[in-house]
Amino acid sequence: MSDSSLLQQLVDALRCLPGVGPKSAQRMVFYLLEHDRDAGRHLAGVLGEAMARIGHCRECRTLTEREVCTLCASPARDPALLCIVEQPSDIAAIEQATDYRGRYFVLGGRLSPLDGMGPEELGLELLGERLHSGLVREAILAISPTVEGSATAHYIHDLAAGSDVRITRIAHGVPLGGELELVDGGTLAHAFAGRTGF
Amino acid sequence: MSDSSLLQQLVDALRCLPGVGPKSAQRMVFYLLEHDRDAGRHLAGVLGEAMARIGHCRECRTLTEREVCTLCASPARDPALLCIVEQPSDIAAIEQATDYRGRYFVLGGRLSPLDGMGPEELGLELLGERLHSGLVREAILAISPTVEGSATAHYIHDLAAGSDVRITRIAHGVPLGGELELVDGGTLAHAFAGRTGF
Ligand SMILES: [Zn+2]
Ligand SMILES: [Zn+2]
Repeated sequence: MSDSSLLQQLVDALRCLPGVGPKSAQRMVFYLLEHDRDAGRHLAGVLGEAMARIGHCRECRTLTEREVCTLCASPARDPALLCIVEQPSDIAAIEQATDYRGRYFVLGGRLSPLDGMGPEELGLELLGERLHSGLVREAILAISPTVEGSATAHYIHDLAAGSDVRITRIAHGVPLGGELELVDGGTLAHAFAGRTGF
Repeated sequence: MSDSSLLQQLVDALRCLPGVGPKSAQRMVFYLLEHDRDAGRHLAGVLGEAMARIGHCRECRTLTEREVCTLCASPARDPALLCIVEQPSDIAAIEQATDYRGRYFVLGGRLSPLDGMGPEELGLELLGERLHSGLVREAILAISPTVEGSATAHYIHDLAAGSDVRITRIAHGVPLGGELELVDGGTLAHAFAGRTGF
């Protein structure tokens, strides 16, 4: 690609994006420079603005450029239902797939002290206040059923002790339409142990 | 993903990148905002600077932030050999795969009058001057063997009429209809070494 150091810098910088390797970074650079500089300029502007202006919702910790995200600000969402997720992207997935009409709380990860993820990093003090506010009737744990996720779920369960909040967990098991033999053993064992009346 | 319009703008803006769909754009946004804002800010800066400052080499038309790219400015490159390619990325592919030590000329496309790609857009006047300068001994056509590529090759062959330039083509081995930059290095090196008279 000739030698332009700025060109190479751009190829390198694009590799910060997940899933972008050296080949695709190079393809992106040539595409933008030769075919769509307007789009490249627009992306540079929006990206810079987003990095500077997007923060976390004061209420639910999801990503937003506002003090309080529109989900938290919406009077149409039931404040007595609180769904606790790991990532902002989990909210998008639940909103698209379900008809849930409550509120959310975003942990931003799972408890993992060795990785520096403790109760403070996950906003668990804020969550505790929420659970003891008297406004929440049910807290739905939509947390990955990993070892760290389970530890996080138990921590939150303990956090709610002494409140009237009912703690529930989304069901984990064999995906709908999934072939039993293609499901990993851990999931299958979990689904088997958690069998319910027909 | 909640509702932030700036968040959605960034997801949309990332889709200008080739190969990036809505899912991967969303993944990129959450990754940058939650895990690597420094990289996002750096990318925004470099991208904006590249769109503004990277132009085309006065000699060979490749992408560069300089008047003349370092390949053209290098006294180590033989000015009697001129390799004619479609895209700046083809130079990178040839440099990586072969031991070619001559110069390049970048057309920026193939002759395709219906798509607005005529001799002017491809810099063929500049190329004609180069071919008749008396400095070039051999011009190697490294153009994709498509219908439009062949038309372009014939146009350049005619352009060299009356000069002493020997016109050669890289050998078949590049798959018919194949994009040069997608060809593996071994095939490209083989095709380059086996170039024949036009
Ligand atoms: Zn919120
Ligand atoms: Zn040049």
